Amino acid sequence: MTMPSHLRIHIENDPTAPSLMVEEQALRQRLNGITGVSAAISINNTGQSEPVGHDADILLACRKMNIAEARAANPNLRFVQTISAGVEAYLDHLPADVSLANASGVHAAKGAEFILCAALMLNFNIPQFVTDKAHCVWAPRFGGTIAGQTILMLGVGSIGSAAARTLRSQGAHVIGVTRSGSPHKDLDELYPVEHLDQLLERADLVVCTLPLTQGTRNLMSAGRLARLKPKCGIINVGRAGVFDYQALEARLRSGELSGAVLDVFPEEPLPISHSLWDCPRLVITPHCCLDDHTTYISACLDIFVENVARFARGQDLINEVDRQAGY
Amino acid sequence: MTMPSHLRIHIENDPTAPSLMVEEQALRQRLNGITGVSAAISINNTGQSEPVGHDADILLACRKMNIAEARAANPNLRFVQTISAGVEAYLDHLPADVSLANASGVHAAKGAEFILCAALMLNFNIPQFVTDKAHCVWAPRFGGTIAGQTILMLGVGSIGSAAARTLRSQGAHVIGVTRSGSPHKDLDELYPVEHLDQLLERADLVVCTLPLTQGTRNLMSAGRLARLKPKCGIINVGRAGVFDYQALEARLRSGELSGAVLDVFPEEPLPISHSLWDCPRLVITPHCCLDDHTTYISACLDIFVENVARFARGQDLINEVDRQAGY
Repeated sequence: MTMPSHLRIHIENDPTAPSLMVEEQALRQRLNGITGVSAAISINNTGQSEPVGHDADILLACRKMNIAEARAANPNLRFVQTISAGVEAYLDHLPADVSLANASGVHAAKGAEFILCAALMLNFNIPQFVTDKAHCVWAPRFGGTIAGQTILMLGVGSIGSAAARTLRSQGAHVIGVTRSGSPHKDLDELYPVEHLDQLLERADLVVCTLPLTQGTRNLMSAGRLARLKPKCGIINVGRAGVFDYQALEARLRSGELSGAVLDVFPEEPLPISHSLWDCPRLVITPHCCLDDHTTYISACLDIFVENVARFARGQDLINEVDRQAGY
Repeated sequence: MTMPSHLRIHIENDPTAPSLMVEEQALRQRLNGITGVSAAISINNTGQSEPVGHDADILLACRKMNIAEARAANPNLRFVQTISAGVEAYLDHLPADVSLANASGVHAAKGAEFILCAALMLNFNIPQFVTDKAHCVWAPRFGGTIAGQTILMLGVGSIGSAAARTLRSQGAHVIGVTRSGSPHKDLDELYPVEHLDQLLERADLVVCTLPLTQGTRNLMSAGRLARLKPKCGIINVGRAGVFDYQALEARLRSGELSGAVLDVFPEEPLPISHSLWDCPRLVITPHCCLDDHTTYISACLDIFVENVARFARGQDLINEVDRQAGY
């Protein structure tokens, strides 16, 4: 990584998300705190692909964009910071000598709270009661508390581990799978993803926080969904492509699954014609339950400013994406 | 209170609630643990009003019943134990020399967990998203966590205080009203109920665990509901009569309230013709979310067996109902 004496930073904002737009002045003030770094900042608030800066070293991408095109317009571009955790939209066109860092970790506090909310909803049969209400059906169910239930985490990143801590504080038994399966202090049991089939048979509830990568696409296939216990519940706050949503919908309609709380979908916004809208035992949250806009950009700028300092000093970035792993 | 050498205990079961029926043999085994007490047990599993024992000293009422009639059939009757926490159905016909004890406390663990669930649901706008789904509407809302929100507890009994502890562990600021307003270790602030009007203006969320008494009936009148902040949420796990449900429904329909999670209703089961069934921003749970049938009867028998021992020794009962206060 080169070490420029003077950094040129370009911000690409998304004007359709006003609460997530970075202000040039706010960034300038925070960058002033970095010793020995001077920065020229350019900004595009139009959401249009042109201009994407012209001589930037660093790009702060607040909207989805083609990094190869940005690089063509900015030959010196060496580092792109996103304000999203998932980066599958950026990886397809990422030049070999451009580093990419994501906003992983920003979602941990709200994400853990939402997963707790969704897990309790499934324990209390809320998706079933919502469906019952639509049909004027009064059908009490007298289950127990979440203590003693077995919750299977697919992925244990910053959100998953924060959620595991919260769920264990309520008494749940939390197991999980990751690529390595190395033990994790926040989980009761952790296994390599190759052990998934056997674990599915133990889960009362499955929680997915996985990014979409070659290794996670269709991980929860129709065959794996069929291995779940009757009346298992599903929470997905990762990416829709990790599941076979057609098979998932069929199991919600049949009642084999007790319910699902889904925050992510194959197409977003979910088209009005999509069959999931009237799927029973399903609670839809429109891809918003991990994002706390009251603190979001501030937390993203914490990561970005730290990374600008590291870039200037030639140090490893935090949250740098492993382009092979895809996250 | 007399101190019989030999106790005659009658159990009135409710055959429509099989998981809540007390078995004579199970009770006999537990009573054998009380030193110096011998008991003759009679039981009625028919759910019919006749026979209600004939010479019982003690009645274990597992169904709603007229205590005056039970007393007429059992002249020695001096103590009635219920397996419900709410006792308004028993108080109208309670002879002056019969003590009544309820099952207060049995619901604390599951009740606190359900109130946490409902509070998180309201924080995450779940009632709104459920309504949006019914209309195929994709409308993200990017709020924060429950930390820093102000939650107003109406009543701080065993459920309310357990819920307050849980909500504070998530960072919420928990205030409340009781008859006395005496400070309580589990709440940030506690006031006499006469201060309610001012507190309503501070609440992001109102949680009612109150029993129905002369002092609580219509406490949350139309006028008090009108004092709530816009987008306040409502949780009621106490009794429906504490609220003006018509005014509550109107405020849910208009969107002045962000949503409600109601477990109790003016008539149960809620009649199929009732307008609440299609009220937007409302989650209905059919009066079942505090009752953990996996542990319920065992916990009730803990109270009852302790009370039988106290009755035999002429000691004060636990959970004895104050017939003036109504709980």
